[in-house]
Amino acid sequence: MLVDGKPYRTIWPHPEDDGIVQIIDQRKLPFAFVIEDLTSVSDVATAIRDMHVRGAGLIGATAGWGMVFAEKEAGGDADRLRELGDELIATRPTAINLRWAVERQLAAIEKGIPARETAMTIADEDAEACRQIGLHGLPLIEGIAATKPGKPVNILTHCNAGWLAFVDHGSATAPIYAAHDAGIPVHVWVDETRPRNQGARLTAWELGQHGVPHTVIADNVGGHLMQHGQVDLVITGTDRTTHTGDVANKIGTYLKALAANDNGVPFYVALPSSTFDWETKDGVRDIPIEQRGGEEVREMEGVDEEGRVATVRILPEQSDAANFAFDVTPARLVTGLITERGVCDASEEGVKGLFPERL
Amino acid sequence: MLVDGKPYRTIWPHPEDDGIVQIIDQRKLPFAFVIEDLTSVSDVATAIRDMHVRGAGLIGATAGWGMVFAEKEAGGDADRLRELGDELIATRPTAINLRWAVERQLAAIEKGIPARETAMTIADEDAEACRQIGLHGLPLIEGIAATKPGKPVNILTHCNAGWLAFVDHGSATAPIYAAHDAGIPVHVWVDETRPRNQGARLTAWELGQHGVPHTVIADNVGGHLMQHGQVDLVITGTDRTTHTGDVANKIGTYLKALAANDNGVPFYVALPSSTFDWETKDGVRDIPIEQRGGEEVREMEGVDEEGRVATVRILPEQSDAANFAFDVTPARLVTGLITERGVCDASEEGVKGLFPERL
Repeated sequence: MLVDGKPYRTIWPHPEDDGIVQIIDQRKLPFAFVIEDLTSVSDVATAIRDMHVRGAGLIGATAGWGMVFAEKEAGGDADRLRELGDELIATRPTAINLRWAVERQLAAIEKGIPARETAMTIADEDAEACRQIGLHGLPLIEGIAATKPGKPVNILTHCNAGWLAFVDHGSATAPIYAAHDAGIPVHVWVDETRPRNQGARLTAWELGQHGVPHTVIADNVGGHLMQHGQVDLVITGTDRTTHTGDVANKIGTYLKALAANDNGVPFYVALPSSTFDWETKDGVRDIPIEQRGGEEVREMEGVDEEGRVATVRILPEQSDAANFAFDVTPARLVTGLITERGVCDASEEGVKGLFPERL
Repeated sequence: MLVDGKPYRTIWPHPEDDGIVQIIDQRKLPFAFVIEDLTSVSDVATAIRDMHVRGAGLIGATAGWGMVFAEKEAGGDADRLRELGDELIATRPTAINLRWAVERQLAAIEKGIPARETAMTIADEDAEACRQIGLHGLPLIEGIAATKPGKPVNILTHCNAGWLAFVDHGSATAPIYAAHDAGIPVHVWVDETRPRNQGARLTAWELGQHGVPHTVIADNVGGHLMQHGQVDLVITGTDRTTHTGDVANKIGTYLKALAANDNGVPFYVALPSSTFDWETKDGVRDIPIEQRGGEEVREMEGVDEEGRVATVRILPEQSDAANFAFDVTPARLVTGLITERGVCDASEEGVKGLFPERL
């Protein structure tokens, strides 16, 4: 999507130097737009581990490029290649797409397919799946727009399931960008998304750069807006959705789903099918929820009065903080799932209809 | 309650100097504990306007003391006294207790009751109402404690309805302090309460100072905790509750009430009866919701690495922010109201049972 008027992906080969892949250092957003060169497995491992890149799709694509460097560094030694792949996998052990991309590369390299070719394919497939999500989600927005001519469709989203989390388009944002680019007036309520502020930092930034009208709100606000008819549609992404329709996503998603349900606001979840969990049936009971360090709650990063990036402590010195990263929204609160193959009910039956070969 | 082991109220006459009333400058909490001397109507007006003191009960008590200075400064001139009272009222025009305290003082002075006596009475009545709320709420906590011997009762609260918002005890916190002081093990989940962070800054501080175990969480977390049996009870305060049981309180309260309802967790609202709105019937429709400046969402205050209080911008420079201060939780989601006269249903019938003279 656009940054300062120019189209970008989140990862791309250097246009003039085969030995470099470039990324946006997302840690620095929205306070600075910094492009970083990666030239080795070690660079890629650091970029994934230290979250220069994040988001399932982008992590997978970055690992794909990591294996291009691994192929070169291993010099034809299959054991060494496997070792380098394992090093990449170890950088974020719970990221399913990371392992998947490394395994796919190992299998392809064994068959003689150059790693560079596979890396390009992985990235293109990710961008294309998101584009398809956009096309399938677009009619939902068009339908609402038709009921309120001349007025913007108000869409609420939580966290960042934007193009920054994938290679392009994003999942939750794909229908929004598709609508905006088609000239349908949209306005996005961006949940700040405490404690890591991915909404305030990333979603607000990418919508702003692409020219999509948006307003940042505290995570507490969505229910009030829905009570007063100011939200037409909720679209979020997901980190893992069971084939029965239970949605694990950034902490706080469940609260917005409850409010949407209480006020008759449609609540959609957008995902590429790689995010489905084909085993787990009861998401609320069985999806383990990561607990992260309390310092993400205790401290806040921003830009100080002199324009420097600074971190401040916002809690009393002695108070403890707990930091649950995700919650699970039960399928009963989800209006539908927007996938690269179309929209379906958030149920085993619905998912089976679109992905019969998996169930 | 206790600060550093010593009992405090939020406002008190200087022990040795009749011309001084002392307050805690709450703007500086939790980063510094600063006691401020007030010696004139102008001091009191500044303290209320600039939020050195806040919270319905405390604003009323502070205005009561403001009229002690007004009585002195007017020197027996009834018109001047009224003018000084109006100056106080104008500092926060929507604070019902502020006007009420000034009017009460004017009537009492006219009857020859010294303003100092009335100021003491207003403060004592506020503290006593909160103490009664504590006594009436205590059995709710005792009842839960009896079902889980040896384990703490987990109570979630939102915003600050603590002793800092009143003269002592607080409303939502009164049953918690009563239980803690009675030796019942309690643990409080403190919602951070974006965007002004009253939970993280004030509730966490006052609970910590009084020795009550607590954990600060992002506002997004409560639903997840309730899904997993980690909240036994929710108690919040309120800025205004209709006599039909609809509860206006800090933005985000409604989302927690939805989650409590979805998970069978009791959701109580604690209030002195002065907070009841005896006119409005439909709170969701008819209570106006204040919108505040976006800078409260865009900026965050904390302590930087050198220990200085600093403000940082946390949003992209160009992004707009909206800031709704309150929401309304419909009575159907409220298990009960804890008042100074006892606990009742959140319904016209319930409120009438406790306050028959008002309805």
